[in-house]
Amino acid sequence: MKSWAIAGIDLLLPVDRGPGVRRGLEATLRDAVRGGRLPAGTRLPASRSLAADLGLARNTVADAFTQLVAEGWLEARVGAGTFVAQARAASAPSGVPELPSRVIGAGEARHDLRPGSPDVSLFPRAAWLAATRRALAAAPHSALGYGDPRGRPELRGALAAYLARVRGVVADPEHLIVCGGHVQAVTLLSRTLRASGAAAVAVESPALPYLPTLVTRTGLRVEPLPVDDDGARTDLLGGPDVAAALLTPAHQFPTGALLTPARRAAAVDWAAGGRLLVEDDYDGEFRFDRRPVGALQGLAADRVAYVGTASKSLAPGLRLGWLVLPARLVGPVAEEKRYDDAQAPVIEQLALAELIGSGGYDRQVRRARLVYARRRAALVVALRDRAPHVTPVGKPAGLQVMVRLPDGTDEAALVEEALRQGVALDALAAYGSAGGAAPSPAVVVGYATPSGPRAWQAALDALCTVLGQV
Amino acid sequence: MKSWAIAGIDLLLPVDRGPGVRRGLEATLRDAVRGGRLPAGTRLPASRSLAADLGLARNTVADAFTQLVAEGWLEARVGAGTFVAQARAASAPSGVPELPSRVIGAGEARHDLRPGSPDVSLFPRAAWLAATRRALAAAPHSALGYGDPRGRPELRGALAAYLARVRGVVADPEHLIVCGGHVQAVTLLSRTLRASGAAAVAVESPALPYLPTLVTRTGLRVEPLPVDDDGARTDLLGGPDVAAALLTPAHQFPTGALLTPARRAAAVDWAAGGRLLVEDDYDGEFRFDRRPVGALQGLAADRVAYVGTASKSLAPGLRLGWLVLPARLVGPVAEEKRYDDAQAPVIEQLALAELIGSGGYDRQVRRARLVYARRRAALVVALRDRAPHVTPVGKPAGLQVMVRLPDGTDEAALVEEALRQGVALDALAAYGSAGGAAPSPAVVVGYATPSGPRAWQAALDALCTVLGQV
Repeated sequence: MKSWAIAGIDLLLPVDRGPGVRRGLEATLRDAVRGGRLPAGTRLPASRSLAADLGLARNTVADAFTQLVAEGWLEARVGAGTFVAQARAASAPSGVPELPSRVIGAGEARHDLRPGSPDVSLFPRAAWLAATRRALAAAPHSALGYGDPRGRPELRGALAAYLARVRGVVADPEHLIVCGGHVQAVTLLSRTLRASGAAAVAVESPALPYLPTLVTRTGLRVEPLPVDDDGARTDLLGGPDVAAALLTPAHQFPTGALLTPARRAAAVDWAAGGRLLVEDDYDGEFRFDRRPVGALQGLAADRVAYVGTASKSLAPGLRLGWLVLPARLVGPVAEEKRYDDAQAPVIEQLALAELIGSGGYDRQVRRARLVYARRRAALVVALRDRAPHVTPVGKPAGLQVMVRLPDGTDEAALVEEALRQGVALDALAAYGSAGGAAPSPAVVVGYATPSGPRAWQAALDALCTVLGQV
Repeated sequence: MKSWAIAGIDLLLPVDRGPGVRRGLEATLRDAVRGGRLPAGTRLPASRSLAADLGLARNTVADAFTQLVAEGWLEARVGAGTFVAQARAASAPSGVPELPSRVIGAGEARHDLRPGSPDVSLFPRAAWLAATRRALAAAPHSALGYGDPRGRPELRGALAAYLARVRGVVADPEHLIVCGGHVQAVTLLSRTLRASGAAAVAVESPALPYLPTLVTRTGLRVEPLPVDDDGARTDLLGGPDVAAALLTPAHQFPTGALLTPARRAAAVDWAAGGRLLVEDDYDGEFRFDRRPVGALQGLAADRVAYVGTASKSLAPGLRLGWLVLPARLVGPVAEEKRYDDAQAPVIEQLALAELIGSGGYDRQVRRARLVYARRRAALVVALRDRAPHVTPVGKPAGLQVMVRLPDGTDEAALVEEALRQGVALDALAAYGSAGGAAPSPAVVVGYATPSGPRAWQAALDALCTVLGQV
């Protein structure tokens, strides 16, 4: 990947040779226009000078421009140069609903510091391709047919061993179900609970904004569960019709709190007698100051449904997640999966199994952990120097940090002002808040989202400027 | 791929070198044991002779055997050789429900002629890997993040052009949604209909056995729609609360009938005023005697939801399908998709876009069409010679054929006897039948399922023996 910029916007160009580079250039530009990062009217550099910057033949760049003009993305104005066209950049796809929350979604601000995404430029493209090659060479034909709704045995075996080793999960491959990321994991569990007669589920508050919606769409009621500096208030778990609780024990989202041992025990006790704890271990591998605290599931495998994902360690676009389930839930959840979409796609399952088996997944996690640890440390130092009135809180872990603001600060006004300065971040209020659990105002900063060191540095600088004004 | 056999069972070995070949051998054997193709107690050849047959180092084979013994798949008996172990082969995965129908599922009979799967040995592994390589080289980083629930624009654009060219579909990429195969397409549509207040959906009878279940699980009622030699009985469409009809116009499943022009017009008329036709074009590219009849959707894009899939043209394991929707449904179905699993996996979407764009998809369809056309022709000729009392019916198309039996034949007894002779096929009754639409007994034969020419020849021979006894 080669990093470059148009009108101050960071763009990344795959450094393949041959026809791939032109396609890559076209795709990068199309994507930047579509996502609004290159607004309508932006003037592109002359193809000759862009080609020189990128070390490409001028024809390659000129051909890409011609193609994008033909497709309507760009516009050639005689004597004036090439510009981002009006029509495409302005029109949203017809009839498609807005993103349900800002957590899932592409950024429009120059500096996107909203949490939810890893740095996708870290995705190990070469290693993934090599794993795909090995997977395709080794797979029996029958793997390409219809199969077990739980997913391929190669991946379930590899994940079970990995989760046991790294997260202390008690993982029988027979109890593991591969699914379409965290979203489908929660959806399948919610449908299963609903079908078994459950009425309500406790969901941490604050939490991922779309999480309550995932649950309520299946017909369940959500009972907000307050959160404090020790994590979810398990003492408030209750309600005779609350069948399950959705928790983020290792790193509460978005506050960053670690669920204390006493509360872990309380949660497990609460779940006795047929209730379910759903452990969302979305960033469990990313603890920076010590070995990660093991999964809650290891304490009580028969009461916890463990949810993991490759969205943070590799890329959200893979849509690979997994559930480790109590024995009694394996059949019902597998049935929900089968009638939802039959099974997870096979080739990427086999590729992930190869990546884990070859040690490549561990290497990738270590590499990403180092990047995020450095970013978090740099953020804490920079805020101390340049924004002394705000306080990053929570454990040094994960891909986002909650930053407390001085009492009386207007969160919403700050977020709006930040956006005017090109910085997108989230007010804590965007995550919901039950029962005064988060009394002081705060913002949530995703430090993994900017792609590449250059974009990150610029984003950090802009963030410090914004928060320094508090 | 290298074809070989153990105890008369065809097995295929990837012909990679290095560690891949051992893994491939292990995977092939594991899969054959798991799927029941190598039953417990089967004796394996000595590693020395198997290595010689396969052109491998003896150690490679011996290592694979040792691994599989350690994993419990095989059993080494001193002085007697290596055998398929009892435990694994006999035990079904704990707590996992039976397959909902025999249409989705792995075969246990020696000759699996149940419809539903293509010949997965035709999957173009090298072309798919090359497409994945190009896709990974060209993709902008942002493609790997969260994105549009409708799927990647590259694939939506490529599919829209392909479907317009090959199937006459009026396809705006903005109205196209990539999803997890036919199963998820039907599920998303059913949920959308249900959420909009619909009460019932007409479903062809006979049809895919799991199809009514997909619909009723979302809370809709199913109204069976009889089928005759001209396809679905559109004159029987009705019911003030029937909001949609699921049809297979190009090649009725499983009877093979083509919906006549008059009935197409009648269906479109029926759908006036807000009703929906769901066109399941599951094998629309596979017509053998003429150019395929264009999609019904081309007649009335605002009344038809077109459903396509890569499961027959490439492989079911990809879990790639697509919906082309009337404008008013794009938003609601995209929302169902988002809250179900966010979006389809990105890398395989980009790979399919590359495969279509490079002409590789067309080549693959032509290649597969030729194979299936030859198999169907061979089947018709062989049955005429060896089973003169049965009659293949339906259009020369697709991957399965319905074979009528003499009046009075007991379908169930025949299917049972076939299974005793090692041939799995389906009684027409397994697909449901409404209103005496299929008065004469019949079986349904999937001629694409056997993997490779050798397995197909053996299966055809066994089928003729079975049906010759009628």
